Amino acid sequence: MPRLERIEYKPISVRKLFLDIKNLSELMIDLAYSAALFNDKELAEDVLELESRVDTLTYLLEMEIMIAARDVEDAEKLAGVSKVASAADKISDAAADIAAIVTKKIGIHPIVSEGFEKVEERLIRAKVNEDSILVNKQIGELDLAARMGVDVIAIRRNKDWIIDPEDTTQIESGAILIARGASAGIREFKELVEGKLRKLEG
Amino acid sequence: MPRLERIEYKPISVRKLFLDIKNLSELMIDLAYSAALFNDKELAEDVLELESRVDTLTYLLEMEIMIAARDVEDAEKLAGVSKVASAADKISDAAADIAAIVTKKIGIHPIVSEGFEKVEERLIRAKVNEDSILVNKQIGELDLAARMGVDVIAIRRNKDWIIDPEDTTQIESGAILIARGASAGIREFKELVEGKLRKLEG
Repeated sequence: MPRLERIEYKPISVRKLFLDIKNLSELMIDLAYSAALFNDKELAEDVLELESRVDTLTYLLEMEIMIAARDVEDAEKLAGVSKVASAADKISDAAADIAAIVTKKIGIHPIVSEGFEKVEERLIRAKVNEDSILVNKQIGELDLAARMGVDVIAIRRNKDWIIDPEDTTQIESGAILIARGASAGIREFKELVEGKLRKLEG
Repeated sequence: MPRLERIEYKPISVRKLFLDIKNLSELMIDLAYSAALFNDKELAEDVLELESRVDTLTYLLEMEIMIAARDVEDAEKLAGVSKVASAADKISDAAADIAAIVTKKIGIHPIVSEGFEKVEERLIRAKVNEDSILVNKQIGELDLAARMGVDVIAIRRNKDWIIDPEDTTQIESGAILIARGASAGIREFKELVEGKLRKLEG
């Protein structure tokens, strides 16, 4: 039997948990398909890690729901929230199934993955090098969308994930950035993050 | 037992089917969460319809995979494609579970949904009125992103869905548009689509 993370219960609002589960499950689908199509082992491992995070959050949400329900009407309406959470859990399981294709080295047949890079936007994962010119910059001031058509969709700092970071979120040395964009821009961005390119153009 | 759509088999490429299933399953998650949070019955019904579409596509993909496999190596690599397709099917089932909360009138407790409109981008569904000034325009020429921060993510013409329409895709009278954007822009766009607002501003 898989070992569940040991969970200390602290009250967090139902709303916050619900949004986290929703956002994480959406992100996982993105990451999982990208991992499979580009055979990206690190992205796949992120997905597997997020899957156990969603398990934990779903458990906490169920606890919050039980505590929040004060009468029959509450309980009925919270049943809907609980149903959505368990659907999100199912989504995150499916994302993990997709990621497992990569970690188990099953892979995707080239008739599907070949040429994929050309037609689709690409999602990348890069670790912020201590020498990168992006260190300690706020995401907003980089103007990535206008400059190179790149959007940072998540940041990982050790075990913490920031989904859909704000303009004011700071890029820290050692963080993992997950970004999406057209292939030329995203390649340039990866080099900036990894400190290989030392100048912001455009 | 639920009745399956009767399917005429025509060869379509594995790649095309795979991409359709991937894109539909991603769209469904978006639509399903929006339907639940905004208690939108029509969006929910779209999700349920797309779910049976994904079932059909998954079945066709399995057939294509069997035909495409010529040797053991092929079969091994195609097993990965098949695994992803069945995960996508699971994702679309989960989206349908979320949508069912709306169609079965279970609903989401206000402690989750309240105030949601203010913080999140909103997804809308609107039918193109024959009097709308958008009729017969191409999506690209409307410059929706710059004008009102709106992005058309899908178009439904009768039973056909166009996911992520091109700039050259034409807006036809009677089509259903699904668009995403910040709340002011998206409200304006809905009025344009429905023919209530007759002037493109900005």
